[in-house]
This record gives sequence, structure tokens and C-alpha cells, in this order.
Amino acid sequence: MDFEIEKREFFKGLSLIQGIAGRKTTLPILTHVLLESQKGWVQLTGTDLEIGIREELTAKVKQEGKASVSAKKIYEIVKELPDEIIHVQKRENQWIRLQSGKSIFNLSGLDPEEFPALPTYQEDYFSELPASLLSEMIEKTVFAAANEESRYHLNGVLVLQKKEGGKEKLRMVATDGHRLSLIDRESQIVRGIEKGIIVPKKGVLELKRVISDKDGEDVGIYFDPTHGFLKIGKSLMVIRLIDGEFPEYEQVIPKENDKRLTLDKEKVYGCLRRVSTMTSERGEGIKLSIKGRSIEFSTFNQDFGDAREEVDVDYDGPAFEIGFNSRYLLDALNVMPSTTVTIELKDEGSPGMITPVTSTESRDQFCIIMPMRI
Amino acid sequence: MDFEIEKREFFKGLSLIQGIAGRKTTLPILTHVLLESQKGWVQLTGTDLEIGIREELTAKVKQEGKASVSAKKIYEIVKELPDEIIHVQKRENQWIRLQSGKSIFNLSGLDPEEFPALPTYQEDYFSELPASLLSEMIEKTVFAAANEESRYHLNGVLVLQKKEGGKEKLRMVATDGHRLSLIDRESQIVRGIEKGIIVPKKGVLELKRVISDKDGEDVGIYFDPTHGFLKIGKSLMVIRLIDGEFPEYEQVIPKENDKRLTLDKEKVYGCLRRVSTMTSERGEGIKLSIKGRSIEFSTFNQDFGDAREEVDVDYDGPAFEIGFNSRYLLDALNVMPSTTVTIELKDEGSPGMITPVTSTESRDQFCIIMPMRI
Repeated sequence: MDFEIEKREFFKGLSLIQGIAGRKTTLPILTHVLLESQKGWVQLTGTDLEIGIREELTAKVKQEGKASVSAKKIYEIVKELPDEIIHVQKRENQWIRLQSGKSIFNLSGLDPEEFPALPTYQEDYFSELPASLLSEMIEKTVFAAANEESRYHLNGVLVLQKKEGGKEKLRMVATDGHRLSLIDRESQIVRGIEKGIIVPKKGVLELKRVISDKDGEDVGIYFDPTHGFLKIGKSLMVIRLIDGEFPEYEQVIPKENDKRLTLDKEKVYGCLRRVSTMTSERGEGIKLSIKGRSIEFSTFNQDFGDAREEVDVDYDGPAFEIGFNSRYLLDALNVMPSTTVTIELKDEGSPGMITPVTSTESRDQFCIIMPMRI
Repeated sequence: MDFEIEKREFFKGLSLIQGIAGRKTTLPILTHVLLESQKGWVQLTGTDLEIGIREELTAKVKQEGKASVSAKKIYEIVKELPDEIIHVQKRENQWIRLQSGKSIFNLSGLDPEEFPALPTYQEDYFSELPASLLSEMIEKTVFAAANEESRYHLNGVLVLQKKEGGKEKLRMVATDGHRLSLIDRESQIVRGIEKGIIVPKKGVLELKRVISDKDGEDVGIYFDPTHGFLKIGKSLMVIRLIDGEFPEYEQVIPKENDKRLTLDKEKVYGCLRRVSTMTSERGEGIKLSIKGRSIEFSTFNQDFGDAREEVDVDYDGPAFEIGFNSRYLLDALNVMPSTTVTIELKDEGSPGMITPVTSTESRDQFCIIMPMRI
């Protein structure tokens, strides 16, 4: 292996790998990046066995070959090098040598044949979706996914294809058992998700990171029963799916919430932030007291004191009280795309449903939050 | 106690206290801020017994009095409040009530009489020094101070008044036993430092933070045998001094370093950063091999590999090698104000001295670094 590459090109590629390789692991090769050179290009591969990324970089290849070196070390070195050509050569005993100007680095490596192969993919299975669509849908659901080792099937986002009103829609849903967030968007058909698959939170977040600067571009996507495959420019990302049953989330969607409150999102958000300063950091309960055309949010903390604030509300039902986790309310408001939102409630023991108020009135996005006893 | 205050004024004051109050401590009152209202102003006081800060804020006082509440909680609340007037009132049982618009907060408090008093100061003892002078001298020395519990007399900066060439100079020196940094600057006479006092690192850094936006302003300063007193605008800062003997640092200053290397600072800095990527994070040894008009910096790490790079040097002595901690070299170069620096060496077992190359050639700033066996 022998190639010359621009520092910027090499650094961009190595940065992308940092998110998944180089972490603490018992298998040393997983902290490495696999370098492969072929005519006209160099490939970098990194994987933690759950997520794999392979990228193609432009380089002047003098000799084909493979090498495996610490992803973190080579990243740190290339980061410090000036904006010039870097010459990369494989030497004896798996060592590689980097040279740029008067700087010379010799990095010890491992046998590249030990590097785990990424699952193979079918070029003609990919559908193209806008990167911005994926980013939006991930952002509006992933916050509601769980972080629990014992209930690993909740630690991800359900991705599902469905037909509604003659239109193909992509659905994402996440829930941690205390709250749920769902979004539907029109899209092309994506292969392999008719029955729904669960993409782990870590994979979803890594995907969001990788496509964060790809607005206006398309992403190739398809799933097989065990993996998701994504093509982003000259990069391939492979995510191992969660093997488990996603909860019957449709049963949780309230259908009899007859108390409908319409509120100014920014005003409620500010009020919640202020009143919840008096809760502990974990996010404790906040009481909503609805009376006439006004809603009072209040908290009480036995160590510090209490807080309350009133906000105007558009509502014409009977007075009542209900408690919610303030963090969950803030998270839900945060992903609503409208300036006005509705909170639909039934009674103090039933879940609340938060929806954006839009011109179409279609239920293509909502959050559900379980109540708390206050 | 009853006063009305602008949110911005209150928030600015509470922010300054956050640096020292509100930390984990076994004495609850030290996590509090003391509020005192008198005609036309409100005073805030915070202390951790090592550093104390008292500030005067502009407010409309309706009733004089004192209260003590959690510095962190009141800061978090005021931060979230809109840019309006806040009404602060003391209630029964040491509670205080904050009200702004439709927001009402009741905060539990402690008896303000329990709050430790700050040491008293003498108004006419203060000398005025430019804030920028203090900032510069702190920045160029404090990095070399130690962080060791067992050698607490090294965990600070020696501050000393001396007369040289008929001029009064302020000196600051810090050392951790492996390196030393010293700076002299002309200044007014400061009371109480003829024999030198040791200001703890934490106090020095807190002072630097407080005066960071005071460029162009003066700071009042004097010391008594146990405390430093600083007046910054309407704030008073009191720092408890370290009670110990500072090392005989003048004996460490090399006088026989006859090998004089002149180097381009930026080039050496970049080279050191690159070559030291191959050291561990703690900063290991870097080898300097001087030969002819060239100097090679090199490292070796048994886990990862090796690195080397050559830089031009202005030197006409014999070839030789010496080792230094790469972190110490980087820190020293970082505080040199010139584009060219000299490194003066004797042999591989003697300390090196780094000085800026300036037009005056006065020795008013330098760093000393002990060598390492490589």
C-alpha cells in the first residue's frame, strides 16, 4: 500500500470514522481504521460491530494494499499536519509510515485481514430520500427513545412504511414507556420496512450526525432483516437493527381526550423553563391547574421552595388539575413545528396528547405523555 | 428586606458569585448568597472561606434587611426570567419571594447571621494597577503552578515587589518543581508584598476571570499577612493567602547555559504539536537532537510508534541531545510574546531556559524547564 493524499481529504474521512471507531473496547482491532488503496481511490472503514462506516477518498495510489492502524492516533496526527500532501506507505510488520514535509511518523498496525468485514449490500435495493427528511424525522422522535439496558427494544426508533389515503408514508416512532413521539411524512417506498424495524438510538444519532451537512442532498436507504444500509455521497453506513418487538404503540394513542387546550408554544415553553427551575435536575412533576381561560403551572421542591406562573389558554371546559414530568413537556414542545399547540386531555389519570396547530389539521405528528401524580 | 431590581443587574451580580459559592461543601451556608439591602443599593456576598466576593448592585430599596438563599437556585431562576423588574421580598422563616410579571417563586433560606463575615479592609491601603497588567502577569505564570495536595506551598503564584534599576517592579513566579515561569513588570508599589506572598492558584484564576472584561480599567489591590484584597469596580474580592515558604527559586535560574539556540516560535510550536501526538496524553518526553543548523524533535511510544520532524535553528555550537516534557515546552512557548525565542542549554542534565527575543534584551520574562532522560 502506497498513496499520496491531500491532508483535507484524509482528515475529513478520518473525522467521520471517529464517531464509531476508537472507543474503549476489548477487541483492539475495533479501535482501528482499515485503510485500503486501489487504483484512484482509498477506502477507510471503521466499525464497532453495531455501526460500520466505509468511505471512498480521492488519492494518488502508487501501490494497492491494506493496512490497519489506531483510528484515534492517525486522526490526531493528520489533524496537526499542515494543509499539504501526505504520503502514506505500508512497511514491514504491519507498520505504516506517514510523511508530510519534514514530518515523519511510523505507526504500528495490526493484520488488516483481522478487520471485521461489513455486511454486503445490493446496489439496486436503494431508494433515495432527502437527507433533510431523515434529519427532521429523527430529530422529532429520537429524544423519546429509552436508555435502558433491560428493555433494549425501546432503545431505538421504529421505522415503518405505510399507505394512507393512497399515499406512501414513512413513519418513525419512539417511546420509553412514559412518553411517545410519532411522525409521518410522505416518501418513496423504502425496501424492507413494511412490517417495521427498530434502528438503535446510537445508529440513528450517528446517521443524523453524518447527514447533518447534507441538506439538499439525497441519501440511499434500504433494510434487510438484520441491517440498515445507507449511502451518503461516497460513504456507506451499515447499522445493525435491534432484534425485538416494538410495543403496540397504536393502542396508547388516546381517542377520548375531550378537553382541548390551545396554547402559545413560546409562552408555555418559557413559563415551563422558569417554573421547573424549582424541580431537581432529573425533571420532577409540574402541576397544571386549568381554570377559566387561564392555566397555572406550579412546582414544589421540599429542599428549595415553590414556583408558579399563569399563562392564557383557549379552553372552555370544566376546571381541573393534572401533573406531568416537566422535562417531557419541554421536549415535546421543542419538536412542535408550529407557533400554537394543542394539549388534549381526558382526566388526571390519562395520558395527554400534544399536537401542532397547522392549517391542514392532519395528525402527522404528535407526542403522548403519561401523567404523574402530584 | 424588600427591593426591586432590573433582571440584568441582578443576573450579572449572581453570575459573578457562581464561580465560588454553590459548590459542594459540608457547610450549607457556603452554597448560599447573602443578600443585603440598604438605601439605594443591594449587596451580594458569596464565599467558600478561601475566596470571598462582595458586590454592590443598583436597586430600588423599599425596606432594608438581610437574607441568605441558595446561590445556584436563585441564579437559575433569575436566568430564566424575562428582561424586566424583579421584586424581591423577605417573608417569614427566612423565606424569600421573587416576583416578575406573572411568575412567583418562594425560596427557602437560612439565617443570614450565620453567613461568615468577610475580613475587613482598609480603604486607604489600596494601590491602583491596570487590570490588563494583572491579567497578563497571571496568564504568563499560573500554568506553571502545581496541583499537589502534599506540596500546597507550590499551588500558587508568588507575588513580590522589588526595586531594580531605580524602578519599582511587580514580580510573579510559579513553579511545580519541574518547571518555573517568571515575569517582572514595572508597577506602582503594592502594600504588603515586600517579602513576597503566595496567592493560591484558585484565587488567581478566579481573579483573572473576574477582571477578564475590565481591559482599560484599574484594580485596587493590597495585601495583609493573611489575605489579598482587590477592588474591581463595585466589587470586592478577598483571597486567603497560602501560609508556607515559596522555594528559593532564584537558585534555580541557570547562569552557565552557554548553548544558545534561536528559533521561530510558531514553527517549533507546530512541530511540537505534531511530534507529541505520538506521546501519551500525560505528555511524555520529546528528544531534541541538535546538529549543525538544524534541530530534530522526536518521540517514541511503545504502543503506537514514533515521530520526528526537523526545524531550522540559529546555533553554532557542538552537536548534542537533550530530552524535555513536550507539554512543558508547549506551555512555555505559548506564553512567549515574541515571534522568535531562545532556548539556552548547558548539558543534557541541566535545566533549559526559554526567553523571548525582544528589542530590549531585558530578562523580564522567562521559563525554566528541567530536562528528562529519554
